[in-house]
Amino acid sequence: MGYVLGAHQYGKAETRVVRIYRHADQHLIRDLKVSTSLRGDFADAYLSGDQASVLPTDSQKNTAYAFALERGVTDIESYALALARHFADEIEPVRGARVDVDEYQWERVRVAGDEHPHAFVRAGQEVRTTSIAVEGRGHEQRAWILSGLRDLVLLKSTGSEFAGFLRDRYTTLAETDDRVLATSLTARWRHMRPEGDWDALHASIRQVLIEQFATVHSRALQQSLWEMGQAVLAAREEIAEIRLSAPNRHHFLVDLSPFGLTNRGEVFHADDRPYGLIQCAVQRDDAPPAGPAWDAPHSFAG
Amino acid sequence: MGYVLGAHQYGKAETRVVRIYRHADQHLIRDLKVSTSLRGDFADAYLSGDQASVLPTDSQKNTAYAFALERGVTDIESYALALARHFADEIEPVRGARVDVDEYQWERVRVAGDEHPHAFVRAGQEVRTTSIAVEGRGHEQRAWILSGLRDLVLLKSTGSEFAGFLRDRYTTLAETDDRVLATSLTARWRHMRPEGDWDALHASIRQVLIEQFATVHSRALQQSLWEMGQAVLAAREEIAEIRLSAPNRHHFLVDLSPFGLTNRGEVFHADDRPYGLIQCAVQRDDAPPAGPAWDAPHSFAG
Amino acid sequence: MGYVLGAHQYGKAETRVVRIYRHADQHLIRDLKVSTSLRGDFADAYLSGDQASVLPTDSQKNTAYAFALERGVTDIESYALALARHFADEIEPVRGARVDVDEYQWERVRVAGDEHPHAFVRAGQEVRTTSIAVEGRGHEQRAWILSGLRDLVLLKSTGSEFAGFLRDRYTTLAETDDRVLATSLTARWRHMRPEGDWDALHASIRQVLIEQFATVHSRALQQSLWEMGQAVLAAREEIAEIRLSAPNRHHFLVDLSPFGLTNRGEVFHADDRPYGLIQCAVQRDDAPPAGPAWDAPHSFAG
Amino acid sequence: MGYVLGAHQYGKAETRVVRIYRHADQHLIRDLKVSTSLRGDFADAYLSGDQASVLPTDSQKNTAYAFALERGVTDIESYALALARHFADEIEPVRGARVDVDEYQWERVRVAGDEHPHAFVRAGQEVRTTSIAVEGRGHEQRAWILSGLRDLVLLKSTGSEFAGFLRDRYTTLAETDDRVLATSLTARWRHMRPEGDWDALHASIRQVLIEQFATVHSRALQQSLWEMGQAVLAAREEIAEIRLSAPNRHHFLVDLSPFGLTNRGEVFHADDRPYGLIQCAVQRDDAPPAGPAWDAPHSFAG
Repeated sequence: MGYVLGAHQYGKAETRVVRIYRHADQHLIRDLKVSTSLRGDFADAYLSGDQASVLPTDSQKNTAYAFALERGVTDIESYALALARHFADEIEPVRGARVDVDEYQWERVRVAGDEHPHAFVRAGQEVRTTSIAVEGRGHEQRAWILSGLRDLVLLKSTGSEFAGFLRDRYTTLAETDDRVLATSLTARWRHMRPEGDWDALHASIRQVLIEQFATVHSRALQQSLWEMGQAVLAAREEIAEIRLSAPNRHHFLVDLSPFGLTNRGEVFHADDRPYGLIQCAVQRDDAPPAGPAWDAPHSFAG
Repeated sequence: MGYVLGAHQYGKAETRVVRIYRHADQHLIRDLKVSTSLRGDFADAYLSGDQASVLPTDSQKNTAYAFALERGVTDIESYALALARHFADEIEPVRGARVDVDEYQWERVRVAGDEHPHAFVRAGQEVRTTSIAVEGRGHEQRAWILSGLRDLVLLKSTGSEFAGFLRDRYTTLAETDDRVLATSLTARWRHMRPEGDWDALHASIRQVLIEQFATVHSRALQQSLWEMGQAVLAAREEIAEIRLSAPNRHHFLVDLSPFGLTNRGEVFHADDRPYGLIQCAVQRDDAPPAGPAWDAPHSFAG
Repeated sequence: MGYVLGAHQYGKAETRVVRIYRHADQHLIRDLKVSTSLRGDFADAYLSGDQASVLPTDSQKNTAYAFALERGVTDIESYALALARHFADEIEPVRGARVDVDEYQWERVRVAGDEHPHAFVRAGQEVRTTSIAVEGRGHEQRAWILSGLRDLVLLKSTGSEFAGFLRDRYTTLAETDDRVLATSLTARWRHMRPEGDWDALHASIRQVLIEQFATVHSRALQQSLWEMGQAVLAAREEIAEIRLSAPNRHHFLVDLSPFGLTNRGEVFHADDRPYGLIQCAVQRDDAPPAGPAWDAPHSFAG
Repeated sequence: MGYVLGAHQYGKAETRVVRIYRHADQHLIRDLKVSTSLRGDFADAYLSGDQASVLPTDSQKNTAYAFALERGVTDIESYALALARHFADEIEPVRGARVDVDEYQWERVRVAGDEHPHAFVRAGQEVRTTSIAVEGRGHEQRAWILSGLRDLVLLKSTGSEFAGFLRDRYTTLAETDDRVLATSLTARWRHMRPEGDWDALHASIRQVLIEQFATVHSRALQQSLWEMGQAVLAAREEIAEIRLSAPNRHHFLVDLSPFGLTNRGEVFHADDRPYGLIQCAVQRDDAPPAGPAWDAPHSFAG
């Protein structure tokens, strides 16, 4: 009986790349957190400490910066795809490359109603994401593209109920036909093909998600998520699958009756923990296989 | 020689109060983090463990919820002022009360261009703040009102230089006539009087700060802060003093010359730490005394 | 063409359970963060909003508290296993249950050298973890047990080099034969069988990991991880596989030569981001299949 | 009427300095976060953007690194004091300097029971702190030294009650004669003189605080804090004043009666927010004035 090296990968995480386009009339800004990860013939580095096949993570960082200038960052999907293809094509021991990018959004400052050409204010905590997986090189190369968002915080103050659920001996929850429903949405969608008008597509999918959350009368967060996912697939044929992960951020009605007050859904305690966590995938019945698309480095060790 | 009890205070921190106004046509939401702190004749609780003069922090929390219904939260300043006055007036051992409120902003969801009546999306990480100090009761009661904001993240991609500075034997920094200037602004302003149109005032001061950051050609962050503070006082006679605390979030130009590339201010590394920290107060020369306005509980132990 | 519900699961995350054993001579404390997640026949909740098969996440939370009393928390693995088996056995629509537990460690306070019977001090930021997956019920039920740790921060101030690596056009890194090596280790190991002396096993594996990190002369973090994993398998036949995820927390030698000083590996800048991220699995060549062991809810959406 | 520049200061925050002593038999490590802040004749930088009197924050960072080598870090108090005195003595426009240092603790790894010479494990989340204020130069220079700790998490599972408190119309809290008492202590103490055996003093004061927390039967957290502070002054004549800031981290007894279970102080919910916050100073009746000792930059803007 012996021991074997199982799955392994390495890379540079959280390189903070800011790309400024200094156009004559106004500047553009792309503000990124870039993580790269390589798989391939790196066993010697583990088994004997021989680094001859190991491109330093420092070089990966340098490449992320250099590509931001050479290749540019017109959108995060095509930037990340170019970076992943570069590692798969140019670095001999690499069999697969993964690039994850978070983008922080900025809005232009308005001065007396007009957009300022080079001053910006951060638009919020919401993050736009992409995850690119590339395997092989040349004609045999394949790519999987995920786009998404994280920390999109949504709340509806009515139009949500929760009733008719299964009860066991540990169930004490009362049914309700009117509650606050709030979440901090993580969504990722997988594209049919590695090409598209990525900025426009992201904006339209984000809008579909928000509109569905708002307008679906929710019998449970599960139902809201299904309707949101289904609506995205209905709206955009470019999307093969969407995955939604939604904490149920509980807002508890505060009992004010000891103080002679009647609380008719007006004062709530927003609790931190615990929270419900509801997750689902919605996909086309003819969606192509997902391959390594969902294998993120942050989930490697469970 | 003996030991004496010095300054002391106690309260309930970070009560998460959400107030919904269920108007017929649309809901309104006020999402708050409320901290209350009392000073007064509480020495026995320390010296002998006698709690007879101590209103439990749990009761302070209950009061925060009850006031959200009874008194309402039309704006955080008047809600917090009412709460602080209540403690000073109604709880016998209290000599001074302080209420700090953070407000998280929500925007209405738009569906097909129209505002949805009861669905909201979080507007960003920026927080609106107020800090109220009240001393005494009845006719002798005095109140100090601070309003402010935190985590307002601003960046300008040009229009900032840093040169002509003092040099010592540890100085290696190169001068620059064009750099990225970025900060996450904390600002608090002290009002002349404990009354005002708080929402409108906050919006106008926030806009003055942003416009000045954008339009002042910055010879240093110090200068930008002074111009921002001065402009607030010039615009709003209601304000006695403003304090600004601004980390200088360094964006370092990446040297791409080893790769045969010339980086003309287009690719930057956004560094986390260390950061510069620039702070100043700007005040009217006839500003009334600040009293306990700036003594926040979080700074008690230095 | 239609849309289908893909993978889906739901549960209660981050329930903070503290269990005190009030023994006559001294108290014991188990301080847990418990997350439960259920898979099964829940499609109706998504597709039509029918909750008849959905055990509320609130009931899952209640069960976590009740089991802490009824079943007890002698160790996190057997507590979590009992909880997961309960959901799989007793809740009819459940096909698979997953329970993740983090445990925060406390040490006894020492007073004049002796252990105090009921006063404790938190032992550090390191977290002990377990993840249990159970599928099926009764005789066909199967269970997979992961144990682990997170945020074990290790540093060696010499005995680490990095040289002989692959170079490409973006490589500028200098080789080094003496550097600081620091990481914040996440490790999880999969057990051969769902039974064991969990506390003793955890302690011994933790010690093996630390000793190997210390004593292996590191030609790269990859090599250190392999040696650490291999040593665990060699020491404990109960373990089928171990996965290690290790950020390389860079400590950069500060160039003090502009100040006439020679820095011989004595002063470093500890950088936050970016960081290298090295990951590998080490397993027995006859390890049983991992099944759903590594499918954590937090990685569901990539 | 005009506007004036009020209080102002600037510096470099959160420089991460790691100092290794490479002794022949074993290495020592000092792992610091250093923040420096200068006050003085810097008005021109604000008012006109003239930087001629401004030592760059980058130079302050360089000085922190250089002093770690030249001056060494035998303990954080003398390192920080040397740094503060340097700025006050050597940089002409400086009238006052403040240096705040956090130290992260490391323990030696044990291999087969013996201490390893150059491998370390982080000792916990607790942080040792110092804050030095220096004013003036040469013979007229004065210095104030604070030492302290932060994030010392303590819990006692019995020996704590809370009863006999003041009740108002918003009070619903039940009295209790046996509860869990938990806190994450921040303590800072002010020294009589700017000299001492800092490491030994810190260890002994930390131990007094912990022992008192454990052994005092607590009628309220207020009483525990007073006894802890008083005991420090009684034990160490070097200390003029101590300030304690203690969140009351609530552990709520879970009601298990709906499940037919009796919870006799064995299962608790550890809540995150809100929390009580109790703060007090204990000082000698002949303590020298505190001067600027407690004026931390982080509290500048309230």
